[in-house]
Amino acid sequence: MDNIEQNEDASTIMRGTEADKAADYANYFCSYAYLYHQKQMLMDHNRMRAYHSAIMSNRKMFEGKVVLDVGAGSGVLSIWAAQAGAAKVYGIEFTDIAKHARVLVEANGVSDVVEIIQSSAEDIQLPCKVDIIISEWMGYILLRESMLDSVIRARNKWLKPDGAMFPSHATMFLGAISFEEDRVAKVGDYAASMHDWSQFTDEMKKYYNINMTPLDDHFDREQAQYYIYSGLWTELKPEHLIGQPSIIKRLDLNTCTIEDALGVDKTPYSITVPFPATISGFAGWFTVDFAGSSANPCQKRVTLSTGPEGGYTHWGQQVFYMQNAIVAAPETVLAGEVAMVRQDENKRLYNLDISISTNGGEKNQYKYEIP
Amino acid sequence: MDNIEQNEDASTIMRGTEADKAADYANYFCSYAYLYHQKQMLMDHNRMRAYHSAIMSNRKMFEGKVVLDVGAGSGVLSIWAAQAGAAKVYGIEFTDIAKHARVLVEANGVSDVVEIIQSSAEDIQLPCKVDIIISEWMGYILLRESMLDSVIRARNKWLKPDGAMFPSHATMFLGAISFEEDRVAKVGDYAASMHDWSQFTDEMKKYYNINMTPLDDHFDREQAQYYIYSGLWTELKPEHLIGQPSIIKRLDLNTCTIEDALGVDKTPYSITVPFPATISGFAGWFTVDFAGSSANPCQKRVTLSTGPEGGYTHWGQQVFYMQNAIVAAPETVLAGEVAMVRQDENKRLYNLDISISTNGGEKNQYKYEIP
Repeated sequence: MDNIEQNEDASTIMRGTEADKAADYANYFCSYAYLYHQKQMLMDHNRMRAYHSAIMSNRKMFEGKVVLDVGAGSGVLSIWAAQAGAAKVYGIEFTDIAKHARVLVEANGVSDVVEIIQSSAEDIQLPCKVDIIISEWMGYILLRESMLDSVIRARNKWLKPDGAMFPSHATMFLGAISFEEDRVAKVGDYAASMHDWSQFTDEMKKYYNINMTPLDDHFDREQAQYYIYSGLWTELKPEHLIGQPSIIKRLDLNTCTIEDALGVDKTPYSITVPFPATISGFAGWFTVDFAGSSANPCQKRVTLSTGPEGGYTHWGQQVFYMQNAIVAAPETVLAGEVAMVRQDENKRLYNLDISISTNGGEKNQYKYEIP
Repeated sequence: MDNIEQNEDASTIMRGTEADKAADYANYFCSYAYLYHQKQMLMDHNRMRAYHSAIMSNRKMFEGKVVLDVGAGSGVLSIWAAQAGAAKVYGIEFTDIAKHARVLVEANGVSDVVEIIQSSAEDIQLPCKVDIIISEWMGYILLRESMLDSVIRARNKWLKPDGAMFPSHATMFLGAISFEEDRVAKVGDYAASMHDWSQFTDEMKKYYNINMTPLDDHFDREQAQYYIYSGLWTELKPEHLIGQPSIIKRLDLNTCTIEDALGVDKTPYSITVPFPATISGFAGWFTVDFAGSSANPCQKRVTLSTGPEGGYTHWGQQVFYMQNAIVAAPETVLAGEVAMVRQDENKRLYNLDISISTNGGEKNQYKYEIP
């Protein structure tokens, strides 16, 4: 039999539309159906304060207006929009958390205004266009989860020409960091795992007469990927950051296309090390602004930062360590290009490709998963 | 719009055949594609010794014979079958670990005998029937993962009438346990989580004017499910076991049907407490035997036990704690009925339903997930 054809059979089951949806539900949506997960996000006070303040400080934009909440979750943003005076709020939510959102809408006395609709953003049908789209769609380094696609599709279809997006602008940052305790620990975990593997292959030969060593290299790559070449959720302190971070992307959410939101094309960055420092690697994070649109600007602008200077958020920062640190003298320039690209196998996940040169020297190229 | 219909739309994406396969791949198969996961299983020496000894002590059954290895993983069982003298071994493996299996087959000098085929068990085409089917299909409490279905389908289609299954028999056990340190810790984690929730709902009201308390009961159920009413992987010591365990199911793998292997129908059990003991809950585990078939019995029988008496296996035991322990005098009889049933949403996962009465008194009914 033809094994190559069979191999293709096994992988093509991931490609059909219904099959894609089912895998996406299993991989992505299902976790959002737990109250525990919702609570984690609701206990993120930086996140909560930013949205609450953006809505309540700009009540005039909500009073008597129609609002769409994309990915309503437990319905908190929809309830706030109603409390701010909206005439009608459509909260759309794909997972079964929608039924809890309905309970909260009722219990908070806004069921005459808020309608929770269990649907994907793409399949929704509304009786009219809306004045404001509010949504909390951001993932690690802004784009992970790829939920922004759905928000943009909803915007293109349902937002009035003079409407406004909440949030309205997003910015992605890349910074150099010094966090040797953590880097050394990760590199040590990787070394320990490889030591384990070597003991394991010895035992497999000795006890069971199986030579496993031809897989040494693959296991090494698998473990290096896991321990080092994967983005790590980290709560950095401001002092871990070395020099000024580079902006690697800006999005105007009122106007950007789905293409704009796919990822970060190869983008140059440059960071000057201001004092003698050991560079452990890089960190990525984002900010979003609530500024309204040019037709309908916010009276009060609000910013939500997930950077090391802003204190805890559940997004933290994504950290990318180098296997070997760079010992940098003052005025050392770290420069290169960074790209953030969707994974082929799972469109909600990304890879980060980064090249690094020191003072214009040879470029080193690294590829990280953002799992 | 009709929200109820939309709700059904969202869930029916899980039901189509291709969609089922895609979700199943995302939920189940993909983890087996990592060498790290394979290594965990290969480092389980009780598991390895049982299979190795079953094959090598019964070489006569393999010499010159055709063998099928269902779910070959890294190909170790296939290589052993070849080392024991098989004329031909078909190792079928659905995930990409198949390519590593091919490397190992080559490196261990058996590529003239072993053919690794990347396919599902259901889709395989072989040129002939086989003398032996070897497979390591067992999950927690034997049936979790529901891989046995695929093994039985392969057996019905490809095993000769006088062939033999390796392993050939399986037995499921339920025991009463005393492990108060662990039970009290889990109940404490649950209580702490509910205390956290209560602080959280206070803050949501105080800071953000949202009443979350209508979800108290649901969160309570979600957390009780998570911390208490879920099977827990545990490495019990023999002294944790109280009295004699009950056998709740036996399977002859040479003859059983897929129906037989679906789960455990309501089955009575009875355990007598031999000395004063605090009963924390129950534990489930299994043994499998390599005895061959009546037409083709093993010269040497081998048993693989995953019970508390047998030392570490990666299966451990699944423990089901009660929220309140039972303080039992000597000769107390714990009796009731136990059932193990596939979950509706994911056929590879199970629920355990158990009723418990003490000395014939009132029955208490509990439902656990085996996640």
